[in-house]
Amino acid sequence: MYTTLPPTGMRDFLPREKEIREYVMREIRDEYKKSGFTEIETSFIENIGNLTGGDGGENSKLLFKIMMRGDKLKNADLSNPENLADYGLRFDLTLPLVRFYANNRNELPTIFKALQMGPVFRAERPQKGRYRAFTQCDIDVIGDDSNLAEIEIIQTISSTLKRLSFENFTIKINDRRILKAIVMRAGFEEEVFTDIAITLDKLDKIGIDGVKKELLSKDYSETSVQDLLDLTDSLSKDGIEGIKEACPEGYENLKQIIEVIQSIEDGFNIEFDFTLVRGMGYYTSTIFEITYSDLGYAIAGGGRYDKMVGKISGVDVPAVGFSIGFERIVDLLLSEDKLSTDGEKIALLFSDDQPLSAVIQSAVALRKSYAVVSLYKQKKKLGKQLSQLSKLGYNGYVVFSTDSEGLEVKQFEEK
Amino acid sequence: MYTTLPPTGMRDFLPREKEIREYVMREIRDEYKKSGFTEIETSFIENIGNLTGGDGGENSKLLFKIMMRGDKLKNADLSNPENLADYGLRFDLTLPLVRFYANNRNELPTIFKALQMGPVFRAERPQKGRYRAFTQCDIDVIGDDSNLAEIEIIQTISSTLKRLSFENFTIKINDRRILKAIVMRAGFEEEVFTDIAITLDKLDKIGIDGVKKELLSKDYSETSVQDLLDLTDSLSKDGIEGIKEACPEGYENLKQIIEVIQSIEDGFNIEFDFTLVRGMGYYTSTIFEITYSDLGYAIAGGGRYDKMVGKISGVDVPAVGFSIGFERIVDLLLSEDKLSTDGEKIALLFSDDQPLSAVIQSAVALRKSYAVVSLYKQKKKLGKQLSQLSKLGYNGYVVFSTDSEGLEVKQFEEK
Repeated sequence: MYTTLPPTGMRDFLPREKEIREYVMREIRDEYKKSGFTEIETSFIENIGNLTGGDGGENSKLLFKIMMRGDKLKNADLSNPENLADYGLRFDLTLPLVRFYANNRNELPTIFKALQMGPVFRAERPQKGRYRAFTQCDIDVIGDDSNLAEIEIIQTISSTLKRLSFENFTIKINDRRILKAIVMRAGFEEEVFTDIAITLDKLDKIGIDGVKKELLSKDYSETSVQDLLDLTDSLSKDGIEGIKEACPEGYENLKQIIEVIQSIEDGFNIEFDFTLVRGMGYYTSTIFEITYSDLGYAIAGGGRYDKMVGKISGVDVPAVGFSIGFERIVDLLLSEDKLSTDGEKIALLFSDDQPLSAVIQSAVALRKSYAVVSLYKQKKKLGKQLSQLSKLGYNGYVVFSTDSEGLEVKQFEEK
Repeated sequence: MYTTLPPTGMRDFLPREKEIREYVMREIRDEYKKSGFTEIETSFIENIGNLTGGDGGENSKLLFKIMMRGDKLKNADLSNPENLADYGLRFDLTLPLVRFYANNRNELPTIFKALQMGPVFRAERPQKGRYRAFTQCDIDVIGDDSNLAEIEIIQTISSTLKRLSFENFTIKINDRRILKAIVMRAGFEEEVFTDIAITLDKLDKIGIDGVKKELLSKDYSETSVQDLLDLTDSLSKDGIEGIKEACPEGYENLKQIIEVIQSIEDGFNIEFDFTLVRGMGYYTSTIFEITYSDLGYAIAGGGRYDKMVGKISGVDVPAVGFSIGFERIVDLLLSEDKLSTDGEKIALLFSDDQPLSAVIQSAVALRKSYAVVSLYKQKKKLGKQLSQLSKLGYNGYVVFSTDSEGLEVKQFEEK
C-alpha cells in the first residue's frame, strides 16, 4: 500500500525550492567559515536517554522515538510502549553539539568555533508554516568566557545576513543577570524568576498595564509588582545606563558588546532590550535575537549557556550559541525574490537522425562556457518546445547541426 | 543519563572529515547540475507502508521504525509491537524519488532529470566501514525510454569522477535482457532466472568451475548448466558481438551506449560484462557500475527500472537511476589525499589592552582578501601558540597593532 504524500508535517522540495535552500545554506556556510567557524556534523539519531535527559524542555515531549529491533524488542516489556524505544530523532543541534564536544574534546582546539547545519525533528501539531522536520543553522563558540565570543558571533551573523541581501535588521540584546537583578531588587524570591520573566517578556504585546494585571492575578505582592514596574519604567527611560548600579557585570558586558558592534560598519542596529527573555532555560547571561524590519518574530537568536557542557561532560566549559531560523530566511527570500541566479542555462536540441556521439561532444564542449547545458530531442512543434524551455528557466538554446562551424546560442523570442 | 557516543553504527564528523564530505558533495552537485540535472529533496521519514511495500528487498528488513505518538499509540494494539510504528526512516533515495514523482508529476517536466543527495538509514549489523546512517548521491532520468538517458548519466558521472581527480575507472555495462536470453536459451525456466543470475555474478570470484559446481549443487540439470557455460564461454571470447543473435534488443542498446561513451573523450573505459547482475530486483534492462583501479568493489552503479514508477503511481513511466557510493568516494579521497584546499587561512592575534573595535574592524577588512580570518587572543608563549595554529591548518598570522600602517601577514617559521 503506497501513499504518494510525505508523512504529516514532513516535506519534499521541488527543484526551485531546493535551489533556494541550497543557495542559502551555501552562503551561510561560506560566510561563517570566513570568520573561522569550522563545520561539523552530528548524528541525526541520539540515544533516547540524551533526549529525555531534561535540557530539552518542551521539545522532549515532541520526540520521534525509534523502536528497538530484533532480540532487544523481543525481550522488551510490551506492557509499556515507553520501554520499546532505544533511540530518537534529535530535536535541536545544541544537545548533539555538547555531546560531540564532550566526546571529542581532546581533538578540538581550546576555543572551538563550531558550525552546524542540518535537520531537526519535532512531533508538533502540524499547522501552516510549522513543520515536523526542519533545518537549523547554528554557530557556537565553546571555551571562551570573554564576550569576544558574543561579539564574533553577532558580527558574523550580521555579515551573513547582509550577504543574503537583508538590510533592515535589528539586534536585540539583554543579559539574564540584569533581569534577575531587577526581579530580586523588587523583592521577589529567586525561585519565581522564570515565571516573572515569562510575563515580562510580553511587555511589548500587552503593555505595562497588561503585565501588572497578569502578575497580580498570579497572587504576587502588590508592592513587589509595583516596584518591578517602577524599575522597568526607569530602565525604559534610561536605557542601558539605568542598570549600571543594579547589575554592574551585566552592564559592563552589554556596554562593551554594543559599543564594538556599533563601531564596525553601518547597517548593524543593536539595541538593549531588558524585556528580552528567550525560551530556553539553559541561558546563563547574554541573550540576543535578530528581528527583520517589521516582521512580528525573530529570525535568529541565541545566548550564553555556561553550565550545559558541564552537565554532560562533567567539566564546566563556557559556551555561546546562535541559531538562524533557516526556514524563515528561505521564506523571506522566496517572498522578496532576492535570489541571485546561477548563470546561463542552455538547452541543446538535436534530432534522431543526428549522430549521438557528436551531439554529446557538443554538450561537453558547451559546458565549458555555460553553467548548465541540457540535451533535448527536438520536437515537431519547435515554438511550443521553446516556450516550455523558457518556462523551465533556460536562458537560450542551440539547435545542433553537423555542418555549421560553430554552435550558435539563440535567445528565446519575447512574447 | 547522558552518553557521549553517538548510537551504534552512527557517526559524528570532525571538522576535517566534514570539510571533505562537503567538498565532495559540492563538486558532485555542481557537475551534475551542469548537465541539466535539477536537485530535489525528499522527506527522510516515510509512511511505514511505503517502506514495507515490497520493492525494498533486503532493505525492508533493516528498517528503523518510528513509534506512534499520543492517542494513536494509546489506542494501538500493544500485543504486537509491529503495530506500534506509523513511520520509518528511508533506506534509499529511489523509493522516495518515485513517490515524489508520483505526487508532483504535473509540476515536473516530461523528461525529469533529478539529483538527490542525502542520508539513508539501515539497521545493519555494524562492522568496520559499514554504517547505519550514510549518504547517497543519486541521479535519475524519469520519462525517457531511449538510451540517451543512460548515455547522459554515464557521461555525467564520468566527468564528475574526473572533476574529483579520479582517472583509472572502468564502467562495466550489461543488459538484464541479455542475461535472461542466455539463461533461457540454455533451457532454464524463467522463474529460476534470478537464482542463476546470483551464481553467475560470482564468475570473476569463483571461476567457471566454481559456477558449475554451485549450479549443480542446486540440482539444475547438467545439460542446461553445460549449455549455459558454453554460451558464457563464447560470450567471453566474442564480447558484445556474441549476443547479437541471442538478444538483438540488448545488443543494439549496449552497442550504441558503448560507442557513444567511447567517442567522447579519452579516459572513459567502458566494457561489456555479461556477468554483471547487480542486486536490486527492479532493474529491467541496462545495468552498469563503475570500478576504480584495482579496488575489489564498485564505487557507483545503477540501471534502468521501467516498471517501478507504474507500481506506485499507476502509470508506467520509464526511468534510469544511478547512485554514487558517497562514503567510498570520501574514503578514497581521504586515503589518497586528493583534496584541494579552500584558500588561505589567517589567524589575527591581539591582546587585551588593544581596542576590540579596531581589532574586529581589521578582521572584517582582512576577510576581503583571505578565505578565513579567525581572531585569537595572543598568548604569552607566542612560539607555542603559532605552532598550534599551524597544526590547525592556518597558513599565516597577523599580530594586530594600532600604530602600524598596514597589517602584515607573516608565515609560520619552518621547523
